[in-house]
Amino acid sequence: MTNSEKYLVDRWYVAAWAHELDKGPLGRTILDEPIVFFRTEDNTVAALEDSCAHRFMPLSKGRIISGHIECPYHGLVYDKNGNCTRVPGQSKIPPSAQVRKWPVVEKFRWIWVWMGDPQKADPNMIPDFHWNDDPNWVSVGDYFYVKGSWRLFVDNLLDLSHVAFVHRSTLGTDGVTNFPVKVTQGDETVHVDRWIFNEPAPPMFQKVRDFKNQVDRWQMITYRPPSHFVIDVGCADAGTGAMDGDRSNGVTMFSNHSVTPETEKSSHYFWHHARDFRLDDRVLTQTLAQATKTAFYEDVEIIEAQQERINTARIDKPIIDINADAGVLRARRMLEGLLDSQKIN
Amino acid sequence: MTNSEKYLVDRWYVAAWAHELDKGPLGRTILDEPIVFFRTEDNTVAALEDSCAHRFMPLSKGRIISGHIECPYHGLVYDKNGNCTRVPGQSKIPPSAQVRKWPVVEKFRWIWVWMGDPQKADPNMIPDFHWNDDPNWVSVGDYFYVKGSWRLFVDNLLDLSHVAFVHRSTLGTDGVTNFPVKVTQGDETVHVDRWIFNEPAPPMFQKVRDFKNQVDRWQMITYRPPSHFVIDVGCADAGTGAMDGDRSNGVTMFSNHSVTPETEKSSHYFWHHARDFRLDDRVLTQTLAQATKTAFYEDVEIIEAQQERINTARIDKPIIDINADAGVLRARRMLEGLLDSQKIN
Amino acid sequence: MTNSEKYLVDRWYVAAWAHELDKGPLGRTILDEPIVFFRTEDNTVAALEDSCAHRFMPLSKGRIISGHIECPYHGLVYDKNGNCTRVPGQSKIPPSAQVRKWPVVEKFRWIWVWMGDPQKADPNMIPDFHWNDDPNWVSVGDYFYVKGSWRLFVDNLLDLSHVAFVHRSTLGTDGVTNFPVKVTQGDETVHVDRWIFNEPAPPMFQKVRDFKNQVDRWQMITYRPPSHFVIDVGCADAGTGAMDGDRSNGVTMFSNHSVTPETEKSSHYFWHHARDFRLDDRVLTQTLAQATKTAFYEDVEIIEAQQERINTARIDKPIIDINADAGVLRARRMLEGLLDSQKIN
Repeated sequence: MTNSEKYLVDRWYVAAWAHELDKGPLGRTILDEPIVFFRTEDNTVAALEDSCAHRFMPLSKGRIISGHIECPYHGLVYDKNGNCTRVPGQSKIPPSAQVRKWPVVEKFRWIWVWMGDPQKADPNMIPDFHWNDDPNWVSVGDYFYVKGSWRLFVDNLLDLSHVAFVHRSTLGTDGVTNFPVKVTQGDETVHVDRWIFNEPAPPMFQKVRDFKNQVDRWQMITYRPPSHFVIDVGCADAGTGAMDGDRSNGVTMFSNHSVTPETEKSSHYFWHHARDFRLDDRVLTQTLAQATKTAFYEDVEIIEAQQERINTARIDKPIIDINADAGVLRARRMLEGLLDSQKIN
Repeated sequence: MTNSEKYLVDRWYVAAWAHELDKGPLGRTILDEPIVFFRTEDNTVAALEDSCAHRFMPLSKGRIISGHIECPYHGLVYDKNGNCTRVPGQSKIPPSAQVRKWPVVEKFRWIWVWMGDPQKADPNMIPDFHWNDDPNWVSVGDYFYVKGSWRLFVDNLLDLSHVAFVHRSTLGTDGVTNFPVKVTQGDETVHVDRWIFNEPAPPMFQKVRDFKNQVDRWQMITYRPPSHFVIDVGCADAGTGAMDGDRSNGVTMFSNHSVTPETEKSSHYFWHHARDFRLDDRVLTQTLAQATKTAFYEDVEIIEAQQERINTARIDKPIIDINADAGVLRARRMLEGLLDSQKIN
Repeated sequence: MTNSEKYLVDRWYVAAWAHELDKGPLGRTILDEPIVFFRTEDNTVAALEDSCAHRFMPLSKGRIISGHIECPYHGLVYDKNGNCTRVPGQSKIPPSAQVRKWPVVEKFRWIWVWMGDPQKADPNMIPDFHWNDDPNWVSVGDYFYVKGSWRLFVDNLLDLSHVAFVHRSTLGTDGVTNFPVKVTQGDETVHVDRWIFNEPAPPMFQKVRDFKNQVDRWQMITYRPPSHFVIDVGCADAGTGAMDGDRSNGVTMFSNHSVTPETEKSSHYFWHHARDFRLDDRVLTQTLAQATKTAFYEDVEIIEAQQERINTARIDKPIIDINADAGVLRARRMLEGLLDSQKIN
């Protein structure tokens, strides 16, 4: 299978946290392609094939010299466009001494790479994750390497009924599954909304506000193919208006996720969790950083267990869908449609 | 290859020690099938496909609720028959929401699973391992996970001439190989008997009785396909009758083994070692537990080394047989005959 | 692919350091063949198939008895020719009870094995590595197991321009690449010579002589297929004659390497480093042992990184060659020619 049969290629993917480039070049495989990311002299980021044109040496093990990258083996130097600018011991550079480059953009504290046709790489297509660097929000986040398919995250993040089971001690309460979801669709977005009324506040919300009584909760998911997820989660005292769609009396946080395929069976998982209140409360920031890390790692364990079973099980076995999959199924159809139209083009 | 080409499927296999279910569900792959074992409300054992019908999640990572098992991902619940009894968030259970089940029986402190046609699962076919829970015997035992084929255990346990080499410090004495074996055959059993006369007592027997002089020894193996082994081993003072088949003046212990294929190249190895004397001597029990564990692990190391060589060697190379293989060859013929007749049926 | 398509088989390969056999038999896979090496009663070395003719047990896990090797499983004994001399429990040895043997020679403190037609095994064909046991030289050396192809060592050791990058802190100075190499060819040898004039002495030469000023340096490589490398490296004070080919005022050391394929993707790397001055200076010996070990392990890291990239990269991608590859390309042509003629024969 070619990459364009397996993945949506004409899309932006998160390759790294910006701070991951602070210590030098970063080698990371994205959609089966080994890529080296590094900062150039003007502090922008370059993304080149992580394999020297001479003898396959990973450039990511080299050093940066004046914003160019030097192969650690024989010292060939490449500029941000992947053109070789120096071959030690000779003045003439072979014309074919170049490595592939990819369009790359730094935005929202993340490094984004475009894996398809470079002509189509429009930075305006980068999905909105402004919560990650908006001064009105404080955001905590992390990166997990996951031995599981990016597709399993679509299941995971579009059906939050799992919080009652996977995240019993962090995000969930038993009542979540009693409330149905409403699924709507936009132009390349799927929205899955759930309102939960008159239930106890889950543990993470108890950390941010001392809810004395029952609450009304919401989980409002926006999915953007292939694997971007913005989730508005919140609580308000039961009966204070949330039931009518008024969230102003409550507490809102954004739980945002972007998953980048390393291969068909392994993923780079980037997430952040943002709040717009008690911005200077560093203890709360630390508490939320730890709590979300714990919770989202629970998902990683689930997904890795699924993947291991899928790898060994008879995958011709039919699976069943349940009501809670309404959003998942809509997202899968959209995804398959996009993959199909990509094959035609 | 299908399972019925690789394994004898219409047989009982040991899946676990009973106590392994004390702490909750147990996931174990048997004959390439991932299975979850757990106790139901009446304390009997259920064996279900270890993969939720919804999204492949291993049920063995879930919890038991009133004798049913709950998927840790979305909370689907299955009864002991593999039928889904609850889908959170909906009252109607999809009719295809079920997972495969296998017949399972608890007997002799072991959990037995039937891997073939459920209609044929007759508990009377479970081979006799009563020594493991008979009040007249004290039995020690353990479980080893082995990176080697169950077939290599047939070689190992039907030719005890290896004790002189593999178990030099535990079970063997050099003279063992000087005495021939007698091989007989029953209906689905092979018997390999060896009498060893006027030799030193091996180290393990020195632990149970202070033999001052030479002894007569016996090794009486009963093999039952595919991989059940009952071995009566004993010693008596030389000349006290053993030579005439009278074992009453000696010390008898049963060294019993049952090997269950995980895959063609890996096995679950269950064994116990039973004695009918000094039943209350807990120091002796402890000594024997440690000594047998040491000795049988020596076999595991041999088998794993063989398997590794087989994996990489040219296995088209012919191998030779030796006199000591008489029992092994008889067992293999029986086994191949049973596998062949299984293919026909 | 058969071995003779992948490797030059009618050649001597280094299998081990002689001292590796001091503690008993040594199991090592050479050109995909598992082999056991051990000392016989007259202290010569035997090389047998590391797999008992009976049940595939690796003989290398057994013990030596009077110069023969005993299988650790059932005690079959083999002599240095691979003939079985004992089967416990029987007097007649099956005529096919034998394992393959390979010609083997101990020379220059190394154990050499001939992997092709035994009739052609001429010890005079062992390449000259006398520096390793010549009393006029003191040699330090070691063995590295490398997860990389032996072919990558041909690239590595025939193009020493990499010392300026890989070995910046040990062997290299930046100027190396400014000086061209001269490539000549003999009968089954390739020679790559480089003279470097009026440069600083590299760190390792500073350890052996206190060079106050600039030096003239030389790197004179002799390659012998498939993977033997003798490298004369030296320094003299700049202007003391080296420029005219006179090395007598300088310091010479030999950096010698022999690489044996384990498989196509893994290698046994043997090397030594010899000097003919300050022979009794044990501190210097220790210093050089450590320094060379550090330096040559830097190459191992490079080669393993290349191999990993080659394993996953699209190897249909064309690579470029540079001026410094002149020796490499000559060596590759010679190697391919030899491999081709081997296929024809």
